[in-house]
Amino acid sequence: MKVIVIGGSGTIGKAVVEQLGLRHEVVTVGSNSGQYQADITDVAQVRALFGKIGKADAVVVTAGALAFAPLAEFTPEQFRVGLDSKLMGQVNVALVAQHLLNDGGSITLTSGIVAEQPIRNGAGASLTNSAVEGFARGAAIELPRGIRINVVSPTLLDESVDAYGPYFRGFETVPASRVALAYSRSVEGAQTGQVYKVW
Amino acid sequence: MKVIVIGGSGTIGKAVVEQLGLRHEVVTVGSNSGQYQADITDVAQVRALFGKIGKADAVVVTAGALAFAPLAEFTPEQFRVGLDSKLMGQVNVALVAQHLLNDGGSITLTSGIVAEQPIRNGAGASLTNSAVEGFARGAAIELPRGIRINVVSPTLLDESVDAYGPYFRGFETVPASRVALAYSRSVEGAQTGQVYKVW
Ligand SMILES: NC(=O)c1ccc[n+]([C@@H]2O[C@H](COP(=O)([O-])OP(=O)(O)OC[C@H]3O[C@@H](n4cnc5c(N)ncnc54)[C@H](OP(=O)(O)O)[C@@H]3O)[C@@H](O)[C@H]2O)c1
Ligand SMILES: NC(=O)c1ccc[n+]([C@@H]2O[C@H](COP(=O)([O-])OP(=O)(O)OC[C@H]3O[C@@H](n4cnc5c(N)ncnc54)[C@H](OP(=O)(O)O)[C@@H]3O)[C@@H](O)[C@H]2O)c1
Repeated sequence: MKVIVIGGSGTIGKAVVEQLGLRHEVVTVGSNSGQYQADITDVAQVRALFGKIGKADAVVVTAGALAFAPLAEFTPEQFRVGLDSKLMGQVNVALVAQHLLNDGGSITLTSGIVAEQPIRNGAGASLTNSAVEGFARGAAIELPRGIRINVVSPTLLDESVDAYGPYFRGFETVPASRVALAYSRSVEGAQTGQVYKVW
Repeated sequence: MKVIVIGGSGTIGKAVVEQLGLRHEVVTVGSNSGQYQADITDVAQVRALFGKIGKADAVVVTAGALAFAPLAEFTPEQFRVGLDSKLMGQVNVALVAQHLLNDGGSITLTSGIVAEQPIRNGAGASLTNSAVEGFARGAAIELPRGIRINVVSPTLLDESVDAYGPYFRGFETVPASRVALAYSRSVEGAQTGQVYKVW
């Protein structure tokens, strides 16, 4: 298979590239990094990206920003960070991919444990991650030509404890290599409309 | 209790006003209808609304637009309809209400069955409704002064079959009066972070 990994230079993306690279041709994308550059928050750049890469069997997205703040101070503009980047960035990829992936292809997006298990400062993450999962449930039943869509919901990664540990006290963490298995399961399995929780 | 019902002139809102009006002082709001006017998509109007109404114990939102379209043709702009109106409109209300409701007050938002049970043309509804539920799960653990937040997820109403029936073939429908009980349960009960499914 030819698999596009958008966010392939990131903490999760690197592990996904390593896991899928064992068996497949992997093409990496970032807004600055990777073999191809595209900012997924701009659907025109996503369209241009797929035009440049040409036919592929799967696209994985491990990219997207979120804002964190105490609920008492959270502004509508801060909610927009997650909506524009992590949510609509991934939706943009799915909307374009449905037309351009090969028959039987797959789309794999990323949410996160905070969709279901809230944390302080995390209302934007709970909202955005839940929206990504809802989108995939909705899109799964309408995708054409046997194309599938799933979401991977990781808990905090071992590799990200230095950056986010204080938000997630008491949460069990997992290595990126284990999270990468869920992306493999989505890409190489046969299910659709699933949320693979790695927690 | 003094209860603000935003969307009180609508199909669901009228039934909520009737049910809560049996025991409470109800204040109705719409963008054009109701005792007070405010467009909840504009957080400044929400702030002005709470300023005009003064202290209240509960706010219920039964308002918010969604776009429906086949996934193959769904545009990012169409997803924005639900994000701006049904999602951020309700989030705006919660962000303002957390500071202005009386101690022990409550916020009750509205999602819908499509969050979990997808329908054709419904990717925007699945996304938006799931986002509303995720927001409430996240916000519930951070609200101050005993303020609670819940979501009511109705299936298609008997009263809305003429408008939306063709999207929901085979779904059991429920009367608005039954849906109104879930809002009563949220406002008059003691739980928080819940999704009350009326289906
Ligand atoms: N790390 C965790 O513990 C964890 C846990 C649960 C969920 N998640 C979620 O998983 C996703 C990835 O997390 P991560 O920690 O691996 O992130 P990361 O290390 O910051 O990597 C992000 C990757 O996405 C790319 N990227 C960022 N914005 C982009 C854009 N607008 N367009 C295209 N590419 C973009 C980056 O490349 P460029 O810099 O070149 O753009 C990079 O390759 C995020 O959505 C995060 O919320 C992470
Ligand atoms: N009806 C159903 O079967 C059903 C099922 C599941 C979920 N839902 C959800 O329940 C909610 C209400 O549905 P409904 O059928 O009762 O709607 P509706 O009959 O169209 O009523 C909408 C109400 O909201 C007000 N409103 C609309 N936009 C507003 C805004 N921007 N700011 C303030 N008020 C606004 C309207 O008053 P103005 O015209 O004066 O603004 C009206 O009072 C929607 O979010 C819908 O998705 C409905």
